[in-house]
Amino acid sequence: MDKQWLVEKTGFETRDVELHGSKFLLGNGYMGYRGTLEEYGAKELAAVNLAGLFDRNGDRWRESVNAPNPLYTVLAAGETVFSPLTAKTDDHRQTLNIRHGFHTRKTVFALGEGTVTVEAERFLSMEREHIMALRYTVSADRGGTFTLKTGIDQNVWDINGPHLKDGETALCEQTLCYTCRTVQNEVPLAVYEQVCGFPPEQTRESMRVATISLAAGESFTFTKIAGVYWGESVPGARQDFETAAAAGYDALKNEHIRAWEEIWNRCDVIIEGDEEAQLALRYSMYQLNIIAPKNTDRCGIPARGLSGQVYKGAAFWDTEMFMLPFFCFTNPAVAKNLVKYRVHTLEGAKRKAKEFGHEGAFFAWESQETGDDACTLFNVTDIFTGRPLRTYFKDKQIHISADMVYAMWNYCSVTQDYTVLRDGGLELIAECVWFYYTYSSFKKYQDRYELNDVVGPDEYHERVDNNAFTNCMVFHAAKTLIKAMEKVKELYPAVYQAFTEKRPMDWLYDFAEKLYVVQPNENGIIEQFDGYFKLEDVDVKTVRSRELKPNEYWGGHGLASTTRVLKQADVVMMLSVYRNEYSKEIKSANWAFYEPYTEHGSSLSACAYAIVAADIGDTDWAYPYFMKTACVDLSGDAKQYLGSLYIGGTHPAANGGSWNTAIFGFAGVSYTDDSLDISPRLPKKWRSLSFRLNWHGACLLIEITGDQVRITSDCPVETLPITVNGEKYHAKQ
Amino acid sequence: MDKQWLVEKTGFETRDVELHGSKFLLGNGYMGYRGTLEEYGAKELAAVNLAGLFDRNGDRWRESVNAPNPLYTVLAAGETVFSPLTAKTDDHRQTLNIRHGFHTRKTVFALGEGTVTVEAERFLSMEREHIMALRYTVSADRGGTFTLKTGIDQNVWDINGPHLKDGETALCEQTLCYTCRTVQNEVPLAVYEQVCGFPPEQTRESMRVATISLAAGESFTFTKIAGVYWGESVPGARQDFETAAAAGYDALKNEHIRAWEEIWNRCDVIIEGDEEAQLALRYSMYQLNIIAPKNTDRCGIPARGLSGQVYKGAAFWDTEMFMLPFFCFTNPAVAKNLVKYRVHTLEGAKRKAKEFGHEGAFFAWESQETGDDACTLFNVTDIFTGRPLRTYFKDKQIHISADMVYAMWNYCSVTQDYTVLRDGGLELIAECVWFYYTYSSFKKYQDRYELNDVVGPDEYHERVDNNAFTNCMVFHAAKTLIKAMEKVKELYPAVYQAFTEKRPMDWLYDFAEKLYVVQPNENGIIEQFDGYFKLEDVDVKTVRSRELKPNEYWGGHGLASTTRVLKQADVVMMLSVYRNEYSKEIKSANWAFYEPYTEHGSSLSACAYAIVAADIGDTDWAYPYFMKTACVDLSGDAKQYLGSLYIGGTHPAANGGSWNTAIFGFAGVSYTDDSLDISPRLPKKWRSLSFRLNWHGACLLIEITGDQVRITSDCPVETLPITVNGEKYHAKQ
Repeated sequence: MDKQWLVEKTGFETRDVELHGSKFLLGNGYMGYRGTLEEYGAKELAAVNLAGLFDRNGDRWRESVNAPNPLYTVLAAGETVFSPLTAKTDDHRQTLNIRHGFHTRKTVFALGEGTVTVEAERFLSMEREHIMALRYTVSADRGGTFTLKTGIDQNVWDINGPHLKDGETALCEQTLCYTCRTVQNEVPLAVYEQVCGFPPEQTRESMRVATISLAAGESFTFTKIAGVYWGESVPGARQDFETAAAAGYDALKNEHIRAWEEIWNRCDVIIEGDEEAQLALRYSMYQLNIIAPKNTDRCGIPARGLSGQVYKGAAFWDTEMFMLPFFCFTNPAVAKNLVKYRVHTLEGAKRKAKEFGHEGAFFAWESQETGDDACTLFNVTDIFTGRPLRTYFKDKQIHISADMVYAMWNYCSVTQDYTVLRDGGLELIAECVWFYYTYSSFKKYQDRYELNDVVGPDEYHERVDNNAFTNCMVFHAAKTLIKAMEKVKELYPAVYQAFTEKRPMDWLYDFAEKLYVVQPNENGIIEQFDGYFKLEDVDVKTVRSRELKPNEYWGGHGLASTTRVLKQADVVMMLSVYRNEYSKEIKSANWAFYEPYTEHGSSLSACAYAIVAADIGDTDWAYPYFMKTACVDLSGDAKQYLGSLYIGGTHPAANGGSWNTAIFGFAGVSYTDDSLDISPRLPKKWRSLSFRLNWHGACLLIEITGDQVRITSDCPVETLPITVNGEKYHAKQ
Repeated sequence: MDKQWLVEKTGFETRDVELHGSKFLLGNGYMGYRGTLEEYGAKELAAVNLAGLFDRNGDRWRESVNAPNPLYTVLAAGETVFSPLTAKTDDHRQTLNIRHGFHTRKTVFALGEGTVTVEAERFLSMEREHIMALRYTVSADRGGTFTLKTGIDQNVWDINGPHLKDGETALCEQTLCYTCRTVQNEVPLAVYEQVCGFPPEQTRESMRVATISLAAGESFTFTKIAGVYWGESVPGARQDFETAAAAGYDALKNEHIRAWEEIWNRCDVIIEGDEEAQLALRYSMYQLNIIAPKNTDRCGIPARGLSGQVYKGAAFWDTEMFMLPFFCFTNPAVAKNLVKYRVHTLEGAKRKAKEFGHEGAFFAWESQETGDDACTLFNVTDIFTGRPLRTYFKDKQIHISADMVYAMWNYCSVTQDYTVLRDGGLELIAECVWFYYTYSSFKKYQDRYELNDVVGPDEYHERVDNNAFTNCMVFHAAKTLIKAMEKVKELYPAVYQAFTEKRPMDWLYDFAEKLYVVQPNENGIIEQFDGYFKLEDVDVKTVRSRELKPNEYWGGHGLASTTRVLKQADVVMMLSVYRNEYSKEIKSANWAFYEPYTEHGSSLSACAYAIVAADIGDTDWAYPYFMKTACVDLSGDAKQYLGSLYIGGTHPAANGGSWNTAIFGFAGVSYTDDSLDISPRLPKKWRSLSFRLNWHGACLLIEITGDQVRITSDCPVETLPITVNGEKYHAKQ
């Protein structure tokens, strides 16, 4: 296996257990299986995290549900349980094959004078979303008698659980089945498994237990097929599972590999000259692909992917602003599902607006299945008093609705598929912009609308006035509504008529015209919010030196709040999103101004700095931020705690940010509704960069070598409005 | 001395030293002399606190200046220094004569087998503002030889000092003189003293030292006249002082007594049937009279009177909303000085508005001589971290400007003296209302102006939207501007013309019409601010039980901030100010609703509850709140710390609140621009209540006995638009 497709760790260290659970994550959009060993349980954060199923137990935080673990398998010899946590190992190796989505482990345990080796391979079928499979092999160089236990383990990680009740186990012919229901909404959940090649067994509860005797040098292998089903899939689950199980391990594996090959054919990005970057970027795309909701438009992507219940399994703006571009350009069907998920949650957004005294649609900061906000008003525990701290992410971080508008239009613009506007998208945009209109303060004496008392992306400064990012996003949302209305009028006149009959829109033009958009000052700097320049002028290091306790929260009333130090890119984020609308001088000045103040306390931050640096041609500035972003889940070098709140897991926004940096930054892809430009500025050591883009219905292959750009398309490239470095592209013959 | 005029404490306790400094305070508007013993120094908080002189040393808080103490006197015998802090006492008695403004002390010290008695009487001349005087007597029952030291002591209390530099002492004939300058602005300060009857002495620096020998039973007395001068009074100081000194102690004392008699003739309130209330109310009026700026319109009344530098010697809204009514009705010249002080500081208020991005006049939350705000953005130290806590008193407690407008009009309305409008008052009102207009958020879809992101009187809930009190005050400010313009148009047409030429006023009528004034809900409750009802519904006791440390600050992000618990009357304050505009039902419902949530953490709180309770006829509810208010400086039962900030001293707002409760509450005096009504509801044990009011130029004597009201006036009462219980008053023949 090419090492650019393989993530590997040899040797065992207990402190890696939590990190590896995320780093070696498997997933297929329906569920995620943490990179734990087969013998791990709740304590080691073993979890089969389900996309889109949420539950609340009592008044604890509502969060995603983890299914019982049907691949649980443990080997023992007498008192010795073969887990590297408790038994001595001579060798241990864990790998993730990101090309085809396999997790393997090989552990050589010391047993008396000899060794016992456990090898396992597992995958979550990319072809059949309910199915996962395991192949498990035991060998003993001196032979011996062993107890092997496998089954459906209910002892899995739960942050605010338990979320499952009324559990029942049944053994029906060869199939072991565990059924239960969620606590709050009583959604049914069913888990099945079958084994093949397993010795004669006893079944105890949901576990199969057998004794195997191995001669010296002999090995023993069994395979397992398992299925996980919830909600509407439960009635047909048994049949679906039996069909899969009947196919057998190898057949399932082959179709799984084929499915992955198709995915990479659409999205792979090839970097020549930088193996480290190649692996990190591919790993980022792997992470995005394993959490993409392929088969449903009722489920968003959680901020920690399918790596667990952190951040409640909820979708944040991360999806729309960081991940969606990848899907728009490489897998429009997934992008459409994501966009439609927000359309389906519009009613929740309207309820939220109303709850806080506004009108229109105020999307959830933390969105689950209904669009009602899972975010609380107290997100952080004060580390000095142990008291819940009032935070304003939920009620004041209003850019969320404009992010939805941005994403909706981005999808339309890239794919030229405007059906989403017809099917609720225009309604969504209009409700979002109306929300801002009702939120805004019109200053009559200045004849302008302001957006006051908000939180921008930089959450360390709560309740600020005229956050540059927010005002800019809302301004574009208003402009987008005007464009969207024109497009619907042109394409779907009846929809347009019904829309305009329902709601007068005269306010919109005034709002779009008079909304205050923060402009650069005499030094070209865009003030992050009113009064930012008056804050204490200290850098990140100085603020850190003032900490009294580790993991002290810098926001709220904390250390950063009265200084210029920011959690994450805010103005620079704006410049990365609207990089076509600002001059190189402005982008350069703001990058240099804000960089020393930026903590990058969010994994969403570095990629904005990377994109803008690449955009202004400074690849030396850009490259370290790109690598920081692309390696976040490989290195585990991300913030693990917010106050006393655990926030670890995978970072799909950063994964998206890596691709964005490679494509929009280094390849220099920029686009409007009508044109696509490629102005490359590759890092010095990258000999070439090639990738595929779906754009306006065409499939483009773009190969950049030095400053040469070659474009291949499934339709004549000359017919497409594509430029390279601003000049019309002509295919060389 | 009638005990209703005497505050007295017998016995000595060290813990009383701080409290007694405030409780036994002398003052004459120019300066305050704390109720310390003659031998006390800085450690015992001895201070001659100057009205209107401020200084800043380095970057510490700018605050009022304490002059050196020219009455400092200490007696010793060998190693024994006669102070009750260090020497054994057989008896100790300290008194304050509030009728004539005398402080006395008598201490019997044990000395060997005998006793030494020190008696002292002092006063700050109410006739000559620079002059103070002391009579000091020593007697020894067994005789003895003593060292007596007296002079100008520079060792006085300073919170953020030192504030004086370049000190020089001179003895010129009999006059000891100490001159110096303030640190920041180099304002000259001169202190003089002369003694009479002092034995032959040595002068060391600014101290006179002498030896006296007493035979058994013999006593020795000397008197001292002192003068304190700063700024423009310094050049003529020597002559002014020598004239006073030449008059001698007894003559100065007599004229001082006459001045006090005149004051009481104008303002005394006589309660029959309740000696405790009588003393407390008189004491409150005493406190107001000793801090009234009689001779200057360049100086406000500090929030802690002239009892020290707490709250920086600055004037708050306390003056306008709590004290000014007393002066309007009993001493219009002082009221006019106070109103004009704010006119003189208008430019500071305009600078402040500009600093925070607004226009018009945003008056200082803590006003010193220029009107620039002495308040900082960090008023409290976080008790858990020791860090300064960002507070929003300065930049968000916007009702301050409306309070100025209220006061300005209140003065005009009560006195019918509109010259203040002509001389800058109309300008002040217009700038204040324009400030609110620029601060306001116009909600186009609701066609209304809102006042968002403010702090109301209840400082435990910062940054709220549509605080009921604030919006109501601003609404009335806008209405007042309309009235004031009409009045100036009528009386001073040239001024009006110049005013309207300078500024178009069309915005005003729209603002006054469409400003959102919070209305009672279906239960008659006026929500303190948007979302208040959604806060945790717990009472004061519950919040207190959650404290982790004593003196924990409940505001900011503290314990009360997420609950309904409020620091001080807010909606009830509004109902007390605009008691004529709400029905009895509304007042009663809101009183009962908010009372359990009110901590009364400010001394400004109880009187609002007292006035509203009396107003709705519930004197049983009203009386304890009245007594709490009237006794605050007698009992010392007020909050001494805000976080770790010392906030002790006198409470002139509460002193004003006592008078307001007696007159507006129990006597039921209410008034509009055109009428005065008296609808008494005396506490049960009050047989009668009589008092004088200046109203519309007439001097009224109002005597209430039971439900009978008798009014005597220096002009025919029938010509005045006065009603009793709503019926036209006719004097009985």
